Amino acid sequence: MGISFSFGASAGRERGFANRLASIAPLCAEAASWIKDGASRDESGFGWYNLTEQDLTPILEAGEWLSGYEAIIDVGIGGSALGNLMLNQALLPMYFNEGEGAPKFYLADNPDPEKAAAIWERVEGKKTALIGVSKSGATAETMSQFLWFRSRMAESGTRPDDDILVITDPKGGVFRSFAEDTGVRSLVIPPSVGGRYSVLSACGLVTAAALGADVRAVLSGAGRMKRFLAGDKPENNPAIHLAALNFLHSVSGRPMTVLMPYSNRLETFSEWFAQLWAESVGKDGTGSTPIRTLGAIDQHSQVQLYTAGPDDKLYAIINVEERGCEIELPKVSDKSLLSLSYLSGRKLGGMLGMEAASTAAALVKAERPVVWIELARLDGETLGGLIFFFEYMTAIAGRLMRINPFDQPGVEQGKRYTYGMMGRDNYSSDAAEAAEMFRRVKENTIKA
Amino acid sequence: MGISFSFGASAGRERGFANRLASIAPLCAEAASWIKDGASRDESGFGWYNLTEQDLTPILEAGEWLSGYEAIIDVGIGGSALGNLMLNQALLPMYFNEGEGAPKFYLADNPDPEKAAAIWERVEGKKTALIGVSKSGATAETMSQFLWFRSRMAESGTRPDDDILVITDPKGGVFRSFAEDTGVRSLVIPPSVGGRYSVLSACGLVTAAALGADVRAVLSGAGRMKRFLAGDKPENNPAIHLAALNFLHSVSGRPMTVLMPYSNRLETFSEWFAQLWAESVGKDGTGSTPIRTLGAIDQHSQVQLYTAGPDDKLYAIINVEERGCEIELPKVSDKSLLSLSYLSGRKLGGMLGMEAASTAAALVKAERPVVWIELARLDGETLGGLIFFFEYMTAIAGRLMRINPFDQPGVEQGKRYTYGMMGRDNYSSDAAEAAEMFRRVKENTIKA
Repeated sequence: MGISFSFGASAGRERGFANRLASIAPLCAEAASWIKDGASRDESGFGWYNLTEQDLTPILEAGEWLSGYEAIIDVGIGGSALGNLMLNQALLPMYFNEGEGAPKFYLADNPDPEKAAAIWERVEGKKTALIGVSKSGATAETMSQFLWFRSRMAESGTRPDDDILVITDPKGGVFRSFAEDTGVRSLVIPPSVGGRYSVLSACGLVTAAALGADVRAVLSGAGRMKRFLAGDKPENNPAIHLAALNFLHSVSGRPMTVLMPYSNRLETFSEWFAQLWAESVGKDGTGSTPIRTLGAIDQHSQVQLYTAGPDDKLYAIINVEERGCEIELPKVSDKSLLSLSYLSGRKLGGMLGMEAASTAAALVKAERPVVWIELARLDGETLGGLIFFFEYMTAIAGRLMRINPFDQPGVEQGKRYTYGMMGRDNYSSDAAEAAEMFRRVKENTIKA
Repeated sequence: MGISFSFGASAGRERGFANRLASIAPLCAEAASWIKDGASRDESGFGWYNLTEQDLTPILEAGEWLSGYEAIIDVGIGGSALGNLMLNQALLPMYFNEGEGAPKFYLADNPDPEKAAAIWERVEGKKTALIGVSKSGATAETMSQFLWFRSRMAESGTRPDDDILVITDPKGGVFRSFAEDTGVRSLVIPPSVGGRYSVLSACGLVTAAALGADVRAVLSGAGRMKRFLAGDKPENNPAIHLAALNFLHSVSGRPMTVLMPYSNRLETFSEWFAQLWAESVGKDGTGSTPIRTLGAIDQHSQVQLYTAGPDDKLYAIINVEERGCEIELPKVSDKSLLSLSYLSGRKLGGMLGMEAASTAAALVKAERPVVWIELARLDGETLGGLIFFFEYMTAIAGRLMRINPFDQPGVEQGKRYTYGMMGRDNYSSDAAEAAEMFRRVKENTIKA
């Protein structure tokens, strides 16, 4: 399908890792079975594995309906937002909001009044669709903005509920009741699919479809990757191999994992992976920290640290062989520019690929572990494959780390503190504790 | 000036850090003198300290000239690009490229042909100014794109050199010779100012001025912060205090420093800091890794890892007290939404501030070290102050780590490999070495 994964000596084999990798082979095999079994029973958290088999009809229909609007405001946060950004950036023309035809797309992914107000300034209420994405319908950041945009739409003289879509749990939760009461359109996040594993559900696919991305290809690529990963022996399975490397490096003085794609269209892919990874593996005192970067930009920002700072990271570089377009550099003729004549007639994308290889080579020279992933091209098919690969890799890594990669108990504390500060019923003891904790933060204040 | 810094018990004092902080007080005092002395002699690398005294006239004049164009393409990478993004995002209306009046602004910060082509599609060659930013005029990523955009402008029938501005070294380098030969407009990056410390030079200020930001206020805020930091004793100097905390935590099992602003307008501030920090302190096997985040979004992405994963980071949260605008949430009336009535009439920005405090409190509860920075408001003055604060803090931290915070020798290896692969004269041995290193990356390839 046009994706290759290289685990050279550089990935850690020189360092006695070969034996350690072999020694955890049974654990890897167990993890792979654990995923297959959990998915076959559709257990909570495993639903992402089955999304490749879903019926796309309701998603495509909703996309078709949405494509008739001038603008779409999509309200969500975390797993309900990052996947949209990632798909749109990877599959639509760059700067797509400045183009003609497709709806403008605004993601209200942060409860920052300046952002929400700026979005509302840019749309015409009567020609705008509002999407609310929350599995529970209880997420304060999402619901607050959803309520506000809905009230603004009502003020512009339409019946806003005609222009609303909610994407939520099929049975329970506030959004589901709201959809039943008001009759607004709704789509489903399957109960067994967690937020950060939900990009291949309606959560991520519906706005991509509305804006013109080929979401069938994305799902088909994910399905091909799934069959590929299921078919091979664990020792030849690249997702298991990367998961094992991540696990072993994380417990061997390398608590960080760097994802560095060399393509602007994959900039938010790193961001999406950073959420998937951090929330999946960061628990019970274990985990590793995702570092999201973009090549070649971060050569001029982070690579100094990567090659000359502490040896505390595993690196995965993603390159794209054939780019969506190519630029041939002009011949240098000005006398003052002659030192640049090595650029004459070169391809810009070709140079970017050489920079990716150079960074990998410089990291190896500095004895840092490097994994190389190459896409023949970046399209719906390869992107879908890459998404499934990283979801699978993350789940395996979590299993190897002996934690549950599908829950996120650690985000509850902050939520309770916020509810407490907002004076919500039944959270007064949280309010008191939050005040005491925050007092410890604020003491010793220096004012400039 | 409306910026406060809190170093509560949470910042590390409970952990026996008080004694250790006291024990490095002489080192801190030495570092502060080192900066003052270096700056007073305008030594290489120290020039950022003196930018607050610069004459803004040429920058404001160039900004005025640029503001007459329909579009500006700014070509730069790393320190020649991130500061522009950061200033524009913090000081201009959000989605400013969709507004009327000011020029559209396109940053060509990556040699990705898809991005460069998308930029060119969006502008009209005859109504576009081209800015090239490179201290040496040798940066391949920048020069390649500069040459291409210039050739496209020539094809659109103008004399492109009338519409070009280069920002470069005052004496040496390719861009300077080019300016002298062709007579294109030029501005100066002072020789003693390094790329990642250059945002308060023409590098960052000129496009911000062209698009309507109050760059005088930025410089004035930086100057006030400089006087504040210079005036106080080291033990009451918040920049020295944060530098010392960063240093001590980095050598005590916390190799990462997290910057988490709670304001969309500061999203790229984190990015700017990440470059400043990584390239300054990551060398000679030492350093700490910057993690850039955005609140509240990363509560739904990274906070699970931060509170429940390994205790390996220092956290600095930035909050903004009075936001640029506020949104009052509507009263909840639908029966199905009554569980959300705790949101009725609340302020969205107020809630965002409570989330910041809740995250700080949750981190303290989990016994993670937290520093709290609060801006009375986010404007040119406080942004300038914050920029100077972090530059100063970074330089002090580098000094404490016994490295040179102003050089970046580690990026040369990758550059030489790229030159080698591109067949540039005198780089053939680099080409051979790069090929060998890359072979080690690519062996053991699995194709999907």
